[in-house]
Amino acid sequence: MGPLHDIKVLDFTRVLAGPYATMILGDLGAEIIKIEQQGSGDDSRAYGPYLKGESAYFMSLNRNKQSLTLNLKTSEGIDIVNKLVEQVDVVVENFRPGTMEKLGIGYDKLKEINPRLIYASTSGYGQTGPYSHRPAYDAVVQALGGIMSITGQPGGQPTRVGSSVGDITAGLFCAIGILTALHERNQSGEGQMVDVAMLDCQVAILENAISRYGVTGEIPRPVGNRHPSIVPFEPFDTQTSPIMVAVGNDHLWKIFCDLINLDIAEDPRFAVNPKRNENYLALRPIIANRLKEKTSEEWQTIFDKAGIPNGPINSVDKVVQNEQVLAREMIVELDHPVAGKMRMPGIPIKLSRTPGELKDPAPVLGEDTDSLLKKYLKLSDEKIEELRINRVI
Amino acid sequence: MGPLHDIKVLDFTRVLAGPYATMILGDLGAEIIKIEQQGSGDDSRAYGPYLKGESAYFMSLNRNKQSLTLNLKTSEGIDIVNKLVEQVDVVVENFRPGTMEKLGIGYDKLKEINPRLIYASTSGYGQTGPYSHRPAYDAVVQALGGIMSITGQPGGQPTRVGSSVGDITAGLFCAIGILTALHERNQSGEGQMVDVAMLDCQVAILENAISRYGVTGEIPRPVGNRHPSIVPFEPFDTQTSPIMVAVGNDHLWKIFCDLINLDIAEDPRFAVNPKRNENYLALRPIIANRLKEKTSEEWQTIFDKAGIPNGPINSVDKVVQNEQVLAREMIVELDHPVAGKMRMPGIPIKLSRTPGELKDPAPVLGEDTDSLLKKYLKLSDEKIEELRINRVI
Repeated sequence: MGPLHDIKVLDFTRVLAGPYATMILGDLGAEIIKIEQQGSGDDSRAYGPYLKGESAYFMSLNRNKQSLTLNLKTSEGIDIVNKLVEQVDVVVENFRPGTMEKLGIGYDKLKEINPRLIYASTSGYGQTGPYSHRPAYDAVVQALGGIMSITGQPGGQPTRVGSSVGDITAGLFCAIGILTALHERNQSGEGQMVDVAMLDCQVAILENAISRYGVTGEIPRPVGNRHPSIVPFEPFDTQTSPIMVAVGNDHLWKIFCDLINLDIAEDPRFAVNPKRNENYLALRPIIANRLKEKTSEEWQTIFDKAGIPNGPINSVDKVVQNEQVLAREMIVELDHPVAGKMRMPGIPIKLSRTPGELKDPAPVLGEDTDSLLKKYLKLSDEKIEELRINRVI
Repeated sequence: MGPLHDIKVLDFTRVLAGPYATMILGDLGAEIIKIEQQGSGDDSRAYGPYLKGESAYFMSLNRNKQSLTLNLKTSEGIDIVNKLVEQVDVVVENFRPGTMEKLGIGYDKLKEINPRLIYASTSGYGQTGPYSHRPAYDAVVQALGGIMSITGQPGGQPTRVGSSVGDITAGLFCAIGILTALHERNQSGEGQMVDVAMLDCQVAILENAISRYGVTGEIPRPVGNRHPSIVPFEPFDTQTSPIMVAVGNDHLWKIFCDLINLDIAEDPRFAVNPKRNENYLALRPIIANRLKEKTSEEWQTIFDKAGIPNGPINSVDKVVQNEQVLAREMIVELDHPVAGKMRMPGIPIKLSRTPGELKDPAPVLGEDTDSLLKKYLKLSDEKIEELRINRVI
């Protein structure tokens, strides 16, 4: 039993930010009851590529969840939601603000049914403020939130991060908010609303860019792959593929010079990091020439022995074979009843006594509708059949 | 009182991943007792730029924390740790694996003192596996973990994300692990260890890249700023600065064509998204030409009215002035006793009943040493003076 085994989540989320949050809760043992639109289901079921007709995108985000189809535009569908809300701990949704209210299941309604309910919303811009009702996608939020403006090659254009960190970080903060509200409820006995905006999360992950700008007045720009203030701390070409080296201090610098057979460790232009920074343009080619003399693998062995942080720039095919990634069970394979075996990331939160677990592959649409309606609403087979004929489920 | 006001955290973390996790806990009301190396403190106190001698980097990550200096290489320092461990709920550390054990305060030791203790470690590669003792920095982990390989301009080089998402996502997952273990402890009465690796977290945030590769066999590469499968969904130049537009479906596509005065909504090459994808190279210049006809601000007004997701690519100076960011209190100013006023990101987790709060600016080194030693160890002024002379504190 996972550490959150006593927590029940009614999950209205679709696509990425919300499903990422509930995936984390499900990986850690919470029961996730995913409400999917009757007929079509989570929008991301339509995202390719497909494996025997099942979306790989959907499957990689919805393991450890149950699927209950509901038509939320019918009064019977809403009645079912209300009865489920009585029995769960958490509701999560990532519609545009106002949508749940229009359906008659906004927080103000649901907290009357269940005052202990934690009601979590993730949205592009949040439940408040002048943009709150605007639509947003990851790309727009990455653009607005500043991370694109500091990502990219020097002098080049602002660059979108290749994974949807706008959605994913919102999912992470949302999970933190839910767990925090659950903790607080243990004392107060009361639920509350958790409101997480993708844009807010982008601001929160800008690291020191905001304080740096505030102090210096200089607008942070893309600096490519080098560190803004530590040298050498960037990739270099080798005889084979590039290698990332991170010579984080002057002690490592001396060792590094020895290893690459360079007699410049004590050179006044390069002896200490501020000087290396100042004389970066002179230093880089000197190092670059040396590193071209061996293969990436040879350098990795040499640097690893001496404790110089380094590594290859892995493409995804290399990541899924990396011995550390595999040793940490960060690539797992789940056997889906329709799609068959599929690989996906494992659980990055390793708990010593009550670890998370990967129990179930993603559900097919409506897979658990009947069993959940029987379990939580005590509905008869006849009633379920009637709901199905009426397209409520 | 924040929602975690009953939680005490003994915080050995330095620089970024660990301090980010404890900042979140502190923002939500936990008491954070930051143990800093006697004499020098958190390494990041030495990172520029400085404001009246105080590091902006450090200040932006250590608000809502107390600073207690300790020399962990003295037996008296370790005695103090042990006495504090009796009284706290959580220990967090981000040393290289093995360091806490060498100091005599590894999890096995500390759980004997306090079996209810949650002991959280973040590290580059985790506590287990062949790389576990290797040093890592954000840049190396971004390289190894695959995110660089999918970030960048098409055909261009792999690109580091401009903020340290290797550290930051580890901090987020670490906070989730701690809160989960606290939840579990309410039932079992027992603590446990939380082990979070930066590399694992990079794998976990690759979104669908791993499943996509698994299904298609195609290695994901940088695709620049466009969406891999939706068109148009990327920035375009205007009369002024570029604008990001995200036309997420065929319904929006028709509206978009009207708005930019293009008669191609029903053109068979472009009418549905798969066709727009197929004919991307023909379509992009047609749209690009239109969008050059007005300013970014004019297009934003037009698109906003019609519900087309869009936005500017903001640099940091624009982010900190954005009306939505400000309305959400995502830029806050704290008044530091030495540095004065400094702006930094606010709290992205908005709780309706027990919100987090920004109580205190980052501490100066050792600011709370005396008060904490009196409060938790009942030490006298004389004893504290003696510890100070002996450089224990």
